[in-house]
Amino acid sequence: MAINDIELVLVGEELLKGQRPDSHLRYLGRTLLACGLRIARAHVVRDQVGEIADVISGRLEQTRVLLVTGGLGPTLDDVTREAVARALGRNLEFHAPSWASIEAFFHARGREPAETNRRQAFMPAGARAIDNGAGTAPGFAVEQRGTTVVALPGPPEELRHMMQTSVIALLREVFRRDPVRVEIYRTTGIGESDLANKLGHAAEGFSSYEVSWLPWAGGVDIVLTQREATADRSVLSEEAERFGRDLRAAIGRRFYERGERSLFEVVGELLTRKRETVAVAESLTGGWIGKGLTDVPGSSAYFLTDVVAYHNDGKVEILGVGRETLARFGAVSEEVCTEMAHGVRRRAGATYGLATTGIAGPSGGTPEKPVGLTFMGLSWDGGALVKHRVFVGDRDQIRQRASHGVLWLLYDHLEG
Amino acid sequence: MAINDIELVLVGEELLKGQRPDSHLRYLGRTLLACGLRIARAHVVRDQVGEIADVISGRLEQTRVLLVTGGLGPTLDDVTREAVARALGRNLEFHAPSWASIEAFFHARGREPAETNRRQAFMPAGARAIDNGAGTAPGFAVEQRGTTVVALPGPPEELRHMMQTSVIALLREVFRRDPVRVEIYRTTGIGESDLANKLGHAAEGFSSYEVSWLPWAGGVDIVLTQREATADRSVLSEEAERFGRDLRAAIGRRFYERGERSLFEVVGELLTRKRETVAVAESLTGGWIGKGLTDVPGSSAYFLTDVVAYHNDGKVEILGVGRETLARFGAVSEEVCTEMAHGVRRRAGATYGLATTGIAGPSGGTPEKPVGLTFMGLSWDGGALVKHRVFVGDRDQIRQRASHGVLWLLYDHLEG
Repeated sequence: MAINDIELVLVGEELLKGQRPDSHLRYLGRTLLACGLRIARAHVVRDQVGEIADVISGRLEQTRVLLVTGGLGPTLDDVTREAVARALGRNLEFHAPSWASIEAFFHARGREPAETNRRQAFMPAGARAIDNGAGTAPGFAVEQRGTTVVALPGPPEELRHMMQTSVIALLREVFRRDPVRVEIYRTTGIGESDLANKLGHAAEGFSSYEVSWLPWAGGVDIVLTQREATADRSVLSEEAERFGRDLRAAIGRRFYERGERSLFEVVGELLTRKRETVAVAESLTGGWIGKGLTDVPGSSAYFLTDVVAYHNDGKVEILGVGRETLARFGAVSEEVCTEMAHGVRRRAGATYGLATTGIAGPSGGTPEKPVGLTFMGLSWDGGALVKHRVFVGDRDQIRQRASHGVLWLLYDHLEG
Repeated sequence: MAINDIELVLVGEELLKGQRPDSHLRYLGRTLLACGLRIARAHVVRDQVGEIADVISGRLEQTRVLLVTGGLGPTLDDVTREAVARALGRNLEFHAPSWASIEAFFHARGREPAETNRRQAFMPAGARAIDNGAGTAPGFAVEQRGTTVVALPGPPEELRHMMQTSVIALLREVFRRDPVRVEIYRTTGIGESDLANKLGHAAEGFSSYEVSWLPWAGGVDIVLTQREATADRSVLSEEAERFGRDLRAAIGRRFYERGERSLFEVVGELLTRKRETVAVAESLTGGWIGKGLTDVPGSSAYFLTDVVAYHNDGKVEILGVGRETLARFGAVSEEVCTEMAHGVRRRAGATYGLATTGIAGPSGGTPEKPVGLTFMGLSWDGGALVKHRVFVGDRDQIRQRASHGVLWLLYDHLEG
C-alpha cells in the first residue's frame, strides 16, 4: 500500500447505464491532486447493499482511505450506510447530534423532516459524523484494519462543500501531507507529435515532475505533477521555469497560458487590460466563439456582438459582405472571410473583428474545398489578417479547432 | 455471477487525476444497455502493469466479461497487453496477421510503421485478434476460467468503431441475448418534483420496466428500461404507449420527444418539414442557441442567422431596437425582447425570430431584476409572444434553461 493511496467508490447505477456523465471523479481527482493526494483506483458500483459491501470489504487493508460517494439520501434506495456497516461487520447506530442537525436544516426552511429522514442519522458504530452544511445527509468516517472509510453524499454541491469544509483537512490529517505542485502549460494550433518534435529533450528528464500530455481539440496541454518522493522547492521551481522557457523558445506564442485559464479567458483579460473590444462573425463555428467568450463572467466588458451568418443573405444584409465577392469567390474564401471580419467590426463599433468561414462537414466538401477547410480572419482599423487551415476530426472537433484558431490570431496580435 | 454481467476496466491515469472527463463509461453504458447488457461494475486504474493485472485477476470468475479499454498504443506506457498476459499467466505471442494489418494501415497512408508499432502485434497466447479499422492498435479477446477478457484501444473513435463492427456481435455470442427495450421520454420547462406531482401514479407500478428520472438543466428525461426477467412484448409496448399518453395528458407539449433527439433536433425537423426558417437574437445566452442549432448536421436548411448582441449598441445598430425602448425599459425587459425578436427576423428574412435577454449572473442582479430573470421572445409575421421566468442555478444552468425555454416557445408554436 503506497503512502498516499486513496481509492474511490462511486455509488450510482445511472453512471453504469451511461445515463449521466461522471463529475465526481473529475472534481475529486483534481482537488486531491492539488492537496498532494492521488486517487489510486476508482470503482463504480450499483446501488445495492451486497455490491457496495463487496467492493469495500475487498479493498480494506489495500488502501489507506476509501472515499465512498452517493447513497446517503433518505429513501430505501440509499443503502451506503448499510453497506459500510456490513463490510466492516458493525451495527448501524442512531446518532443524535446528526438528527438534531437534520431537524435544524428543515426548521430553518420552515419545514419538518419526514420520518424517512431519520434513516440519515444512522451510521456504523464507532464512526464520526461529517457535517453536511449544504443538505440533509451527514457523511461519516470510520477506521478499520488500517483503512479509513469516508462516506459522502452524492449531490455535487453537498460533496464539494463537505470536501472544502472538512474532508480535505481530515485527509491531510490521515496522510500528514503537504500539497504537491502541479504545473499546467497550455498550447494551441500544433499537434502532439509536432510539438514533441519541436520540444525534443526539453520535455524529458525532469527529476522532480511526472509529465502528462493531454491533447484535445483546442490544443495540447502539458501537465507537470510533482513526484511523490521529491520535496526540494528550488528544484521544483527551477524545472518549472526552465520548461516554460523551453516551450516558449520552441513554439513562441502557441504556448499561451501557464495555468488553468482557457484561451477565451486569456484573450478576455488582455482586452480588458487594454480597454479594447471584439465582435465576431461566425459561419461554420455557428456560435461557438460567442458562447466561449460569454462563458467568462465579466465578458460584457469587451465582447460586443456575435453574428452567426449561416446563410449568404445574412452575410450580405447584416455584415455587408459584397454579393459579387460571394458570387466570385464563394462563401468559403479568404475574400469573404476578410469582408465578414471588417463588416462585423464596423457594424458593432468594436476594436477587433473576428470571422470564420469553412466546411464543418460531415457533408458539403468538394475536392477543391474539402471538409475541414476553414478561413479565419482578424480585422482591425487599418488592416486584416486571414489564415486558412484544413482541420481534421469530426464536425465538433473541426468547429472547436476553428474557434481556437481564430481566437489565437487575436491573442497573437494583442501580445505582438 | 449474474447471467449478463459485464465489468469494465478503464486504464488511464489522467482519469484518476481529473485531467480528462470520462467518455467511455457513458458511451459503453448506453450502447450495452441497448443490447440488453449491463455494466455491473467499472474500475478505473493507472497505466501500470501490476495495477491493471491485479484488478483483472481479482475479477476472473466473478464476471462473464471483463472489457478493458486503453493502453494498447505503441509506446512503453501502453502496458495493457502485458497486464492481461500476466493476470492470465500466459505469454505474449507475436500475431502475424495483426502485424500485416498494421503495415497495411501505414502503407495506405504512404508511410512505414515504426519499430515500436511491432509491440501492437503481440497478444496473450490463445487470444483472438479484433481488427481495428480506425487506427493501428488491434484489440483482442481471450477466455479463462469462465471470464472473457476483451481489450480495446482507448481513442474513442477506434473504440466505437470496433464496438459497432465486431465487439457487440462477440458479446451477443457470449451472452446469447436479445436487445432489451429502452424507452426515453424527454420533457422541458417543468421541475422534477412538479412533474412527479402532475404525473401521480402514472410514473409508478410498471410491471415490465424500471423507471429512472434524469433531471438536467434542459429539462427532465424519464427513462424506462426493460427488467431482465420480463420478455412479453405486448406488455412492453402497452406500458410504453400508456406512459406516453399519461405524460401527454399531464404536461401537454412540455413532453416534446419520445426518443433520443434533443429539442434543437426536434425543432430543426419541424422547420425542415414546413420549409420555414429561423433567426436568433441572443443576449444572456451568448451564442448558446446558435451553437445548439448548428450542432445539428443539415441545420443550414433552416437556420439563417444568430446575432449575439451583448452590448446595447449592437441591439440598436444590428437588430434595430429603439434607443428609447432601451432607455425607458432597460435591456432586460419584455419590450426590448420583442423588438430583438422582430428585428432579427426581419433583418435575416426568416419565418421566425427568437430572442433572449436576461441576467445570467453571477453578478448584475438587482431586487427588481434578480440574477436568473430572463425574457424569451418569439416573433413571426403578424405577431409575437414573450414570456419571462426567473431561472435558478449557476451561470451555465441559467443560460441552458433560457436556451431551452425560448426554443420550446417555437416548438409549441410549430406544433400548435
